[in-house]
Amino acid sequence: MRFDHVAQEVPDIAEAVAWQMRTVPGSTVLYQDSTWALVQSGGAKLAFVLPGQHPSHLAFRVGAAELERLAAEHGVEIATHRDATRSIYLQGPGSLATEIITYPDADAD
Amino acid sequence: MRFDHVAQEVPDIAEAVAWQMRTVPGSTVLYQDSTWALVQSGGAKLAFVLPGQHPSHLAFRVGAAELERLAAEHGVEIATHRDATRSIYLQGPGSLATEIITYPDADAD
Repeated sequence: MRFDHVAQEVPDIAEAVAWQMRTVPGSTVLYQDSTWALVQSGGAKLAFVLPGQHPSHLAFRVGAAELERLAAEHGVEIATHRDATRSIYLQGPGSLATEIITYPDADAD
Repeated sequence: MRFDHVAQEVPDIAEAVAWQMRTVPGSTVLYQDSTWALVQSGGAKLAFVLPGQHPSHLAFRVGAAELERLAAEHGVEIATHRDATRSIYLQGPGSLATEIITYPDADAD
């Protein structure tokens, strides 16, 4: 299980991306629309999401079979997202949920 | 500027560490006392702190000279922490502050 990204809720996606690009020089936008964005910043992937769409979270990447196993172990449903990733969310010890995610092209991880 | 760690406020440090170790197999404790902890988890460093001590944040590592420059640019004071790291906090676009941190042994980064 490998750390994949940190996501946080922000009121305005474009403003958040602009702030990140200005604050951490060399950041690059991997994806952006009006509802979410993914920025590579200092070697880490940071997601910005609108409130209510996803909880703020830490994501860890696994293979598809491992995601199935963990979903059963934790008794939660796997959700399929707009970008074809699949994941579960676990309530963590603080304000950041833990997402366990698998990518469409991931056979194992 | 390189991504260094994610910190989040939790009500109980020991419980948070136990949760992380259980949820992400292979996690290791880098530091732990009753007031904060640092866990290596899936290749990333996650800090757990008590409410009111530090804000939940994303930390980026720089050299000492760059920290001085950024503190002046942003007009904020550099704080020295218990572990001899020095940093500034900037209010980010969401609930996670951005910490710019330098380590005692970092001449440049």
